[in-house]
Amino acid sequence: SGVAMMKFKSPPVNSLSLEFLTEFSISLEKLENNRACRGVIITSAVPKIFSSGLDITEMCGKSMEHYTEFWRAVQEMWLRLYGSSMVTVAAVNGSSPAGGCLVALSCDYRIMAENPKFSIGLNEAQLGIVAPFWFKDTFVNVVGHRTAECSLQLGSLHPAPEAHRLGLVDELVPEEKLMEKAAAVMAQWLALPDHARQLTKTMMRKAVLDRLVAHREEDIKNFITFISKESIQKSLRKYMEMLKKRK
Amino acid sequence: SGVAMMKFKSPPVNSLSLEFLTEFSISLEKLENNRACRGVIITSAVPKIFSSGLDITEMCGKSMEHYTEFWRAVQEMWLRLYGSSMVTVAAVNGSSPAGGCLVALSCDYRIMAENPKFSIGLNEAQLGIVAPFWFKDTFVNVVGHRTAECSLQLGSLHPAPEAHRLGLVDELVPEEKLMEKAAAVMAQWLALPDHARQLTKTMMRKAVLDRLVAHREEDIKNFITFISKESIQKSLRKYMEMLKKRK
Amino acid sequence: SGVAMMKFKSPPVNSLSLEFLTEFSISLEKLENNRACRGVIITSAVPKIFSSGLDITEMCGKSMEHYTEFWRAVQEMWLRLYGSSMVTVAAVNGSSPAGGCLVALSCDYRIMAENPKFSIGLNEAQLGIVAPFWFKDTFVNVVGHRTAECSLQLGSLHPAPEAHRLGLVDELVPEEKLMEKAAAVMAQWLALPDHARQLTKTMMRKAVLDRLVAHREEDIKNFITFISKESIQKSLRKYMEMLKKRK
Repeated sequence: SGVAMMKFKSPPVNSLSLEFLTEFSISLEKLENNRACRGVIITSAVPKIFSSGLDITEMCGKSMEHYTEFWRAVQEMWLRLYGSSMVTVAAVNGSSPAGGCLVALSCDYRIMAENPKFSIGLNEAQLGIVAPFWFKDTFVNVVGHRTAECSLQLGSLHPAPEAHRLGLVDELVPEEKLMEKAAAVMAQWLALPDHARQLTKTMMRKAVLDRLVAHREEDIKNFITFISKESIQKSLRKYMEMLKKRK
Repeated sequence: SGVAMMKFKSPPVNSLSLEFLTEFSISLEKLENNRACRGVIITSAVPKIFSSGLDITEMCGKSMEHYTEFWRAVQEMWLRLYGSSMVTVAAVNGSSPAGGCLVALSCDYRIMAENPKFSIGLNEAQLGIVAPFWFKDTFVNVVGHRTAECSLQLGSLHPAPEAHRLGLVDELVPEEKLMEKAAAVMAQWLALPDHARQLTKTMMRKAVLDRLVAHREEDIKNFITFISKESIQKSLRKYMEMLKKRK
Repeated sequence: SGVAMMKFKSPPVNSLSLEFLTEFSISLEKLENNRACRGVIITSAVPKIFSSGLDITEMCGKSMEHYTEFWRAVQEMWLRLYGSSMVTVAAVNGSSPAGGCLVALSCDYRIMAENPKFSIGLNEAQLGIVAPFWFKDTFVNVVGHRTAECSLQLGSLHPAPEAHRLGLVDELVPEEKLMEKAAAVMAQWLALPDHARQLTKTMMRKAVLDRLVAHREEDIKNFITFISKESIQKSLRKYMEMLKKRK
């Protein structure tokens, strides 16, 4: 059918570790180079969670070299996904904070299970950290400047119905219908001639993609400087302890 | 009253041919230079169609010189209309795909007959072609980035009620009230002092107008390169044959 | 509690005179430098009016030096308020035209008394003048390009319910609950770590702030040239006479 299915399966919460990101990027590259593949549906094989976002253990107590390698992998994943020439549909079948939300935002279309217990958002501010400018650019392109400004400053995690109202996700469907709906949306997008659709997508996304490409090394430096601060390391350690206790 | 009425009358579907565009631009220029004229209402004298957009016969099997002249005429029309110092109101009394939609988008205000059989949108992708960047810029200024991204990639033609929901048109009225409503809206806009209104309009639209002015020759070259491709010519011929059969 | 309250009290209508603006900026600077202060709620002590905007007497029949000093004070106020590192909440307890609307737009969050007699908007065009580009940029960042284009050209004053529908204000509450609600919103914003929230705010607002900083002297010159025109002076005198008669 020309449609690939990607199921995130890294229990317990599909954290975007260096290994996960690297595999994700390689898979995207392979699909991109496979002329038989025209679209990809991204979903999770882990119940109740789409992806919990960047793996905090990768950002805590590691070397500069590690931070560099990790951040480059985050950038790489986004450049590949947001700039993909394939049709990309996110079937968000669970919560999707921070980097998980970025993955969904980078697709062409977002369908979410209509469970109000599932939430999605760029909640970095809650952890005392700041979403990088290209997370913000991607977000603004989806929900507009005002919603982004408010949501980013509050680090909001929006329950599915609110996310839909804000335009953060395009559609809500009952969880059991999610894959069926994703396939239907994919078919609708694939009905268009690839070449015209791809050029149009590039026209819409190029400015934001180019901005990271032009400032990639600077963005890595900023990340390292920020993440190396003792105050930030402390926040992250505190957050990880809280997560451990929750289990 | 200081208000001109422009009725597109080029049956069967008000295609924007080279001749039509040239006349349209000259009419706009004359009105612009006529100090007694402060506003123009644009509508169609052809039933069920506002304008079907760029005339495909002008883009099919013609010489480079012809393509150049044609594309320059499309640019000229848009620069005059989007940059007009007059109040421009589109009374959209029929369907309005592609270039027809651009004409409506370039006005200050859009009122559409509330007939769900009438649709409007930049559906270029459906034909295998791509809306140029300034069509896109005009569209984004009206409906925002996300709606534009989705609608352009799918080449959507939105039925009137959906177009209204998306903000693509400002108001829906029963077809028999369209001209009355257009006159009322015009009166409301003309109640403002011209000078302040014009400077405000320039402030809002200048960035997008300047972008085409700065890249006009490049845009013509892009159009010619694209349209001359055998694959594109083939798509267009196929589309024209389909249109003929429909009749 | 770390929250300051600023009550505009310059009867009859809280006009933004040179003196008022200077005091406003100094107060903001003091709060900004006071590490104990993390947020400020801005409201009015004058019934039915938040602020009537820039004081027209400062723009009428004065010297170039006066115009320069006045305009610099308007810029200074906006740069401090829009760029404030504190959480800023506007409790809009009355009408708020022109510069009054700008003050509200520059805060992080706007709550308005749900009285439909209270209106808000950048109505400069009604007076024959033009909102400067940074008023426009601030407005676009809140309501988007299309709403701003329409509202600025018509010089619209939106009654509270319409302002809410357009996103110009974030919430409507009964007037007697306004301060309670403002305090609750403030508490919600202050729950976030200051550092992350401030960096996020800067990321969202820096482009627009930098634009005025880069063009500040040019913007002053434009203002003086415009305001010195005999036709503009005449409009403003006429407007002031109308205001006097209303009393």
